[in-house]
Amino acid sequence: MTSQINPPPRLLMGPGPVDADPRVLRAMAAPLVGQFDPFMTDTMTETMGLWREVWRTVNEQTFLVDGTSRAGIEAALVSLLEPGDDVVVPSFGRFGHLLAEISERAGAHVHRVEAEWGSVVDPDRIAEVARRVRPRAIAVVHGDTSTTMAQPLDALGEIARETGALLYVDATATLGGNVFETDAWGIDAATAGLQKCLGGPSGSAPITLSERAAARIRSRRHVEAGIRSADDGDAPGMRIRSNYLDLAQIMDYWGPRRLNHHTEATSMLYAARECARLIGAEGVGARAARHARHGAAMVAGVRGLGLETFGDDRYRMNNVVAVHIPERLRTEPGAGDAVRAALLEDFGIEIGTSFGPLHGQVWRIGVMGTGARRDAVLATLAGLEHVLRRAGIGVPAGGGVDAALESYGGHADGGGAEPVLQGAGPAEPEGDV
Amino acid sequence: MTSQINPPPRLLMGPGPVDADPRVLRAMAAPLVGQFDPFMTDTMTETMGLWREVWRTVNEQTFLVDGTSRAGIEAALVSLLEPGDDVVVPSFGRFGHLLAEISERAGAHVHRVEAEWGSVVDPDRIAEVARRVRPRAIAVVHGDTSTTMAQPLDALGEIARETGALLYVDATATLGGNVFETDAWGIDAATAGLQKCLGGPSGSAPITLSERAAARIRSRRHVEAGIRSADDGDAPGMRIRSNYLDLAQIMDYWGPRRLNHHTEATSMLYAARECARLIGAEGVGARAARHARHGAAMVAGVRGLGLETFGDDRYRMNNVVAVHIPERLRTEPGAGDAVRAALLEDFGIEIGTSFGPLHGQVWRIGVMGTGARRDAVLATLAGLEHVLRRAGIGVPAGGGVDAALESYGGHADGGGAEPVLQGAGPAEPEGDV
Ligand SMILES: Cc1ncc(COP(=O)(O)O)c(C=O)c1O
Ligand SMILES: Cc1ncc(COP(=O)(O)O)c(C=O)c1O
Repeated sequence: MTSQINPPPRLLMGPGPVDADPRVLRAMAAPLVGQFDPFMTDTMTETMGLWREVWRTVNEQTFLVDGTSRAGIEAALVSLLEPGDDVVVPSFGRFGHLLAEISERAGAHVHRVEAEWGSVVDPDRIAEVARRVRPRAIAVVHGDTSTTMAQPLDALGEIARETGALLYVDATATLGGNVFETDAWGIDAATAGLQKCLGGPSGSAPITLSERAAARIRSRRHVEAGIRSADDGDAPGMRIRSNYLDLAQIMDYWGPRRLNHHTEATSMLYAARECARLIGAEGVGARAARHARHGAAMVAGVRGLGLETFGDDRYRMNNVVAVHIPERLRTEPGAGDAVRAALLEDFGIEIGTSFGPLHGQVWRIGVMGTGARRDAVLATLAGLEHVLRRAGIGVPAGGGVDAALESYGGHADGGGAEPVLQGAGPAEPEGDV
Repeated sequence: MTSQINPPPRLLMGPGPVDADPRVLRAMAAPLVGQFDPFMTDTMTETMGLWREVWRTVNEQTFLVDGTSRAGIEAALVSLLEPGDDVVVPSFGRFGHLLAEISERAGAHVHRVEAEWGSVVDPDRIAEVARRVRPRAIAVVHGDTSTTMAQPLDALGEIARETGALLYVDATATLGGNVFETDAWGIDAATAGLQKCLGGPSGSAPITLSERAAARIRSRRHVEAGIRSADDGDAPGMRIRSNYLDLAQIMDYWGPRRLNHHTEATSMLYAARECARLIGAEGVGARAARHARHGAAMVAGVRGLGLETFGDDRYRMNNVVAVHIPERLRTEPGAGDAVRAALLEDFGIEIGTSFGPLHGQVWRIGVMGTGARRDAVLATLAGLEHVLRRAGIGVPAGGGVDAALESYGGHADGGGAEPVLQGAGPAEPEGDV
């Protein structure tokens, strides 16, 4: 008989998924309740509130899509975009392509505004195209994990309003580890996934929708045949192409009507609730600062090893850094992957490879969720130093760890235990049972 | 600060979700590993094998869709059906409507073959329509949870082959608790969800595809822009409308190419693996027999309470029975729901309400997963007796429990501890760690 699951111990320092907070994993082991049990519907409502804090929004329509991050992306785009709609997609990496691809499959006309990988898109170019096209939406990635760059978003809300567009943002890789201001930046729709800075497993996609976006979605509401009642007239807009990702129906399920749609993935709901609860306890701002501090230490550390970072420093995400694979390894087939494999095998530490034009060119190292802590950063740098040296690359002894320690040095709180660690953190406030 | 999750103790005897096996819940608490960690890819491959046993198939393409059951349904239909395709949908309850609705949203022409709720569709009528239309697919629900009826499927494979159609089956509510023969019945595509007979939480949709179905899907393969390589030419078929539910891409991710698509929902993968592992250990046939035995005891029990069952006995699913709400409660607004609420509040036992034409007419009682056991059946009947009596309905004292015991009586193994219960079951075989 096959054995029960028994994963090897790992320290996940790639671009995600990263290690989930053990408290989140334990929350998933809680027993199920029925779909319309008062405890269940109360928990859904409570979870909406907890996520509003994370998103920094007052949006009523703040909930979960049951799927991975790209389910959230597709739910937003297929519900907002009708076939024939125009959409402007700034693109500076793989996930910009993904937004374009999903929009195309939804039948929209895509107007790409591209920038070279390693940089971001000039907002003036976005404005110029949006003024010309007057699109239904502008759809943009915040942090594109493929390049580690974060697009500045603060100017885009105004461009969207000026041009009559809705602003959609893919915050999968940044939310919970970088400053993200749904309301202050005028974002109409944003989605994420739990497996990066948010400290959970993949499989649940938090989403938030402004009243403008929600109204657009409601204008396309068509309740499905098996459950519609006499007063469920069809809205004038075109029926949304997907049933599973139909946000009009999902809003009715999370809203006071509790109209049956899918069966909410209860264990993932518990996980998403616990992620948001822990983020709220740490403080959204404190958590972004923690990611910035440990991310900066990793950048200093890889440079201290003599490695070159990829991309424009001004736009670097807090939580993932790409480093050029040393020349000698880059040219020898398989050598770059062999170094990653040695790090996994000898130290149990995972770092990431990359896609498209960067494939074979850079490694990507993540510092996020519980991984945004001092011992994880230092252990990764120490391990990397060893495997690079064994691969014949000249690296200064202790150069990575020393540089990271120096980066921490100036901050009184730079290296200490972080509240994210259970045991090491402050006791849970009284009243938490 | 909000407390950690702490659901009230419940015994879930509705139409699903039901209580997950505690071993499945614990499996989800296992730590994550990276997406392309050898342990992860091996676990995905192993999980495919475990599910082949549950589906009773040799289909290579047997894997999970990351979402609830309807994500699996939509993945199958949107990947098989192109806009303009014809599809024949036998329908005898709410979930037949759902298949029609999802097919329509995929752009297909739907030819419904309807039967009254409480019965099933005559295969001759399906054959007649299929011969006339020569559809791309016949899409049918196996057990329609809304009516508790199971459509006989053994004749449909031949009809599909004769008319050049692919046969799709929604096995959400039956798999793991009723005889289900993917290969022997000539089924080309079937999907399920974990939260009914399979003993897990909602949020992962097992799927299996015949080589015929897989070939159809491959003929529509379009690898997305961000990750395609020079040899990824587009297939001649129309691009699938969904990216998230594009089975061509999901097959590439689960297959030897391991082409990145979504990030597999690791904790739900662990859950799905554990469900299939436990089903394999119990034996697929033994498990269906267990559901039949306890389901029959519940039917006998509710009749012993003087309640009338809904629907045609010949087609009853093993795992859920609908009972007419007693006349007096049916006519008094809210009285039926008050009885269910009392059962939940006083006994911690949940039974289900119903949809559409049956709303307010019947309750639905589920006997599935770990709930398909003697003490759960008897406790439900005892609780129901009390709340009915308190609502002023005349019920014979002990009539439900006695009738159930009598139903068990003939079987030596009818009432004993079942291997599904941890502790009570046989020790795990040696070598399981
Ligand atoms: C037969 C059938 N199909 C589909 C579904 C939809 O499943 P989910 O709610 O998991 O999406 C259900 C749920 O009850 C069902 O019983
Ligand atoms: C920015 C961004 N968007 C979308 C995705 C897709 O997420 P998922 O794999 O969870 O569907 C990712 C995953 O790495 C991502 O980094």
